[in-house]
Amino acid sequence: MAEERLPSRSEDFSEWYNQLVLRAQLADYAPVRGCMVVRPYGWALWEAIQQGLDRRFRATGHQNAAFPMFIPKSFLEREKEHVEGFSPELAVVTIGGGEELEEPLVVRPTSETLIGHMYAKWIKSYRDLPVLINLWNSAVRWEKRTRLFLRTTEFYWQEGHTAHATAEEAEAEARRMLDVYADFAINDAAVPVIQGLKTESEKFAGALRSYSLEAIMGDGKALQSATSHNLGENFARAFGMQYLDEKNVQHFCWTTSWGLSTRFVGAIIMVHGDDQGLILPPKLAPYQLVVVPIFHDEQERSLVLGQIDSLRAELGEYRLTVDLREGITPGYKFNDWEMRGVPLRVEVGPRDVDQRTVMLARRDQPGRAGKFSAPRDGLALRVGETLADIQASLYDRALQFRKAHTFDPQDFEEFAQAVEVGFAFSWWCGRAQCEAEIKEKTKATARCIPLDQPAGAGRCICCGESAEKKAIFARAY
Amino acid sequence: MAEERLPSRSEDFSEWYNQLVLRAQLADYAPVRGCMVVRPYGWALWEAIQQGLDRRFRATGHQNAAFPMFIPKSFLEREKEHVEGFSPELAVVTIGGGEELEEPLVVRPTSETLIGHMYAKWIKSYRDLPVLINLWNSAVRWEKRTRLFLRTTEFYWQEGHTAHATAEEAEAEARRMLDVYADFAINDAAVPVIQGLKTESEKFAGALRSYSLEAIMGDGKALQSATSHNLGENFARAFGMQYLDEKNVQHFCWTTSWGLSTRFVGAIIMVHGDDQGLILPPKLAPYQLVVVPIFHDEQERSLVLGQIDSLRAELGEYRLTVDLREGITPGYKFNDWEMRGVPLRVEVGPRDVDQRTVMLARRDQPGRAGKFSAPRDGLALRVGETLADIQASLYDRALQFRKAHTFDPQDFEEFAQAVEVGFAFSWWCGRAQCEAEIKEKTKATARCIPLDQPAGAGRCICCGESAEKKAIFARAY
Repeated sequence: MAEERLPSRSEDFSEWYNQLVLRAQLADYAPVRGCMVVRPYGWALWEAIQQGLDRRFRATGHQNAAFPMFIPKSFLEREKEHVEGFSPELAVVTIGGGEELEEPLVVRPTSETLIGHMYAKWIKSYRDLPVLINLWNSAVRWEKRTRLFLRTTEFYWQEGHTAHATAEEAEAEARRMLDVYADFAINDAAVPVIQGLKTESEKFAGALRSYSLEAIMGDGKALQSATSHNLGENFARAFGMQYLDEKNVQHFCWTTSWGLSTRFVGAIIMVHGDDQGLILPPKLAPYQLVVVPIFHDEQERSLVLGQIDSLRAELGEYRLTVDLREGITPGYKFNDWEMRGVPLRVEVGPRDVDQRTVMLARRDQPGRAGKFSAPRDGLALRVGETLADIQASLYDRALQFRKAHTFDPQDFEEFAQAVEVGFAFSWWCGRAQCEAEIKEKTKATARCIPLDQPAGAGRCICCGESAEKKAIFARAY
Repeated sequence: MAEERLPSRSEDFSEWYNQLVLRAQLADYAPVRGCMVVRPYGWALWEAIQQGLDRRFRATGHQNAAFPMFIPKSFLEREKEHVEGFSPELAVVTIGGGEELEEPLVVRPTSETLIGHMYAKWIKSYRDLPVLINLWNSAVRWEKRTRLFLRTTEFYWQEGHTAHATAEEAEAEARRMLDVYADFAINDAAVPVIQGLKTESEKFAGALRSYSLEAIMGDGKALQSATSHNLGENFARAFGMQYLDEKNVQHFCWTTSWGLSTRFVGAIIMVHGDDQGLILPPKLAPYQLVVVPIFHDEQERSLVLGQIDSLRAELGEYRLTVDLREGITPGYKFNDWEMRGVPLRVEVGPRDVDQRTVMLARRDQPGRAGKFSAPRDGLALRVGETLADIQASLYDRALQFRKAHTFDPQDFEEFAQAVEVGFAFSWWCGRAQCEAEIKEKTKATARCIPLDQPAGAGRCICCGESAEKKAIFARAY
């Protein structure tokens, strides 16, 4: 309910976000620190994300499966970088069925180790490869500072895990899945993303190479929106995952993993939302349309509701809800559904019934600009076109915003100013020392080295030495 | 792969089950005791079950959401029977982020307590009721004796949780969801079920009244296939879940919960399977059709595969896989897919191409009886009819089996014999003492008091006192 105004994004972006998540009933705080309850409206959004991804995973040959949440603690210790990366964040089960366990179990922070153990058992020959499996589940990382969707102790995600015969195939898979995520982000979520390579200091603990999608939020900060890792032979060696080739020679497998989590819900909120609340992209919105009846007496009521019944049938191909709540005004309902981000509102009053029209109001163009009358004849088509147009303009707007907030600073002072408000796309020598110095002085981190690079070379924005690649630097969620 | 024969069901039903689950690649043992990995073929079956249920839950007004896996240990203690029932089975997290937790967390064995806490926060007025939420997740119960799908430490399920204004509404909801489960079991899974009330000793810990579906397995034992609980005001009182009615008077809510788990996969295996392996009902089978090409040389190969390409397009409405594996014979493929339970096999050889026919083989009628040639013209229709007929005959066969294995024993000796091989449907005085005596002497438990009762009254099969109801007694999984 929208009794009080949200804080505006410009005055307090962080509070705007927190209050919006609660008021729109996307999620709520659970009694356990750092955990969230995802409420039906938020879960419906996540289910739409799941469907968009799942369809793409299947189209690229992947199958779903389920692995247990419990992993023997000793498994994590088999891959040195992996255990160092995840040890501080583990939730550990020490008691089961009333007795102290001989070996403590960790609740999965991610499943590479358990996958390694099982794939080693299943894979014997080149005929068994590739293995292309995806898991929809939740994972647990004990985070110090948590925020709904963005960083929660338990989060929902998918984790893909594949095994291949060659290094080239594993690299191709890691890149393919990064493309799949980008296609989803751009076309379903209307979120522009930069595909890039993670730096050594930012890569996944245990990976040979990590790729990510980076997106800019409404406050100019970056959000890592998905990751795809080429794990090399690291986990295959740690777990003895080997295969016999055509000539009966034994080799280690090459593996990948890739994930997208409920963090992405945070990206959708922070990329598209405005001071009125959420703006959901039509392809993912739990409700694409909300119908609000307008009437003043019983006679008008039955006229209008009758009309809405036939509308419901005509618009059956869209996800639609009719707001029949009693005792609240249409104006209140307008505000409420604007806050909850429904892309298109349909108003039906007695005059609309007479004239065989409805009033449409676009969420992406608040006020008069986005409100227009449309004839009942051909309405389904008109609605479809309008939703497609909303989807496209949300993407364009977000892309314009990113362009306007991506800078090419000429010196460190300009660099420091740039990362206060957006992305700095700067030459970097590639040394961890410069990366660390930048972080210390500006709080900005190297988000990624974009795959799409300009020609030529330049001078590192930090040390002035020669640099072959440009990187995106930004403060990040 | 089916290199070795499965043990037959009559010689060792239990080993037949265990080996079949592994060989059909439905699931595998995880490294943590009592946990399972559900492999892609098994998970696809579970996803089909999920879709069948989810559609029915939505049609009855329920919405999905997600609640955290961690519950403060003290929450369980608020409902006396609940904590007594679940305490011995808990997995407890005592360490988080490297530090001992102030309050230990249990991994949910079921979510009534967390639901109670959150609903108490959300529900204020009668306008907020009913709350109709379902969760798809996994739960953990530390089981002493485990078996793949039937009883695993972590299991996958859905748990529905609803809150209502009156006792009548809660009772109606509990009964409605039992009907929903029965409709799914009968129509999608072809599993005949008996709807009934659980006895006091078998009801859910914390419930006012528990209902269940009971099905008979191929060895005559019972499997509880779904449960639906009227929780009364018990959890509402424990967590302060109250609402104001139209007259501003405060009342406690009435709640229900209901669940169906991956145990049901075990039911499908044990109800329909035969000595060759699985027989999956067409509505839930991951593959409804498997196409096996038959050729002897390169020319025949290209002829046959060309034909299969056009078949694939024609049969696009069915879930279909083509077995293109090289280096193994068609006969081997037949056995393999029979073992994995695909309802209908399509064989395509060069002569079929010439004559514009295919050979169809029904999994439910092994050997010659179920094998017949069908013209290519109108094949999609013929396949649809055949799958519908397989679905129907699986149900009929299972129902006949149950009828043949349900007895009305005249004395205790006959009763004891009956529960060695099937169900005893017997008059029972309703006293826990008789129930316990029966269990001790025969290992059979009161599965349920069927909702569908004969007229009249009788004498308790145990004590001979007058009895108003008949109950189903059986040994159970």
